[in-house]
Amino acid sequence: MLKYQEIANQIEEYIRVSKLEQGEKLPSLEDLITNYEVSKNTVIKALSILEKNGVIYQVRGSGIFVRRQNRKGYINLINNKGFTDDLADFNLSANVLEVKTILPTQEVSDNLKCSLTQEVYYVKRIRFINKQALCIEESYFNKEYVPYLNKEIVEDSIFHYLKETLKLKVRFSDKYLRIGKLNQTEASYLNLNTHDPALHVDELFYLMSGEPFDFSKMTYNYNHSQFFIQSSGMDK
Amino acid sequence: MLKYQEIANQIEEYIRVSKLEQGEKLPSLEDLITNYEVSKNTVIKALSILEKNGVIYQVRGSGIFVRRQNRKGYINLINNKGFTDDLADFNLSANVLEVKTILPTQEVSDNLKCSLTQEVYYVKRIRFINKQALCIEESYFNKEYVPYLNKEIVEDSIFHYLKETLKLKVRFSDKYLRIGKLNQTEASYLNLNTHDPALHVDELFYLMSGEPFDFSKMTYNYNHSQFFIQSSGMDK
Repeated sequence: MLKYQEIANQIEEYIRVSKLEQGEKLPSLEDLITNYEVSKNTVIKALSILEKNGVIYQVRGSGIFVRRQNRKGYINLINNKGFTDDLADFNLSANVLEVKTILPTQEVSDNLKCSLTQEVYYVKRIRFINKQALCIEESYFNKEYVPYLNKEIVEDSIFHYLKETLKLKVRFSDKYLRIGKLNQTEASYLNLNTHDPALHVDELFYLMSGEPFDFSKMTYNYNHSQFFIQSSGMDK
Repeated sequence: MLKYQEIANQIEEYIRVSKLEQGEKLPSLEDLITNYEVSKNTVIKALSILEKNGVIYQVRGSGIFVRRQNRKGYINLINNKGFTDDLADFNLSANVLEVKTILPTQEVSDNLKCSLTQEVYYVKRIRFINKQALCIEESYFNKEYVPYLNKEIVEDSIFHYLKETLKLKVRFSDKYLRIGKLNQTEASYLNLNTHDPALHVDELFYLMSGEPFDFSKMTYNYNHSQFFIQSSGMDK
């Protein structure tokens, strides 16, 4: 790991352990240099990463402050660490309904930029939080990047497998949210009533090279749909 | 405006005018330096801003690519430019129901970090898109930063007033989304039925100094609730 990334992680850990809240002041740049025994440049780079990730903000002439506002049980929509981080205190599990290769629909083909005659992996799961249905998830994987999947793998964390076994790294993703009403099938999976509120999230994941490889369509149980978003300012 | 910010704007404008799509390649670093007649350092800074704002991505040894995936009518949840940018093709308006000073509730006081005995401005508006109700918006402003508001001001763009007249700059905001069902009052404002889906968004806006000054509670019409989010990777 790069030195400035290591220092960034240590500062983030310090904020977490010290339970510092939004607006609380961090040690000065000079103190951070002394404390971590690294160059000024390394600390500046570390702070820049933390600011980009919404962990701190710097006010010229005033200092470095903690930016860490969230509510328990809210999922952070910006950092794609899966659910694991935000919902660490909850009991998460998944029920795999299907794992198979299929020919993509036009929508899947458009998103994954693969041909209609090129098979993709299709995975359908119900995800649970504290044994209550959190969402229905249908994922499509480009076989060029994900050549093999089975039930055992997708019952566990797919992203863990992608990262550790296939050595794939997610660079970024695009999410599309819309609100609607549950149809009968969706309602039965989520243990809700037909026409209850539905949150639909389409998400397209990209590799480091910028290639899309995972297109996922999720339908959330509105009772467990709480999301947190940190936004940047209007003045770029 | 700083030179690198100017170059960043010009590159973004070039992408827009050329209608470049996600994954399309931009001129090389060397070509950008030549084209814009600026230093390498300036172009690197400009590209760094554009990458941070999700406009481009750079692949080492391969080039600079456009990152610009959105769907028409979807609101970008990360960049707080108000609705104006994403919904530029739509007819937007607002109906002001109330503008007054009130004593804050506990929730408002907690969020704006002001005392329960310190009055705040309260604004209630219905916002319309193509003459259909888009959302109910209740905003609370700390009077320390927003000493005066009236009906004429809030009928127009509040953010324009804050920026141009009061010279306030928004640094960042925290958004909290949750899904529920409309109560009778909300449904009547939005011209929907009681128990129809509701998207509730609480948003807290901060000034450059990191002080919160605007706490807004919005309830969206689910028929017009489409949001877009660009996320960063899992590997920080």
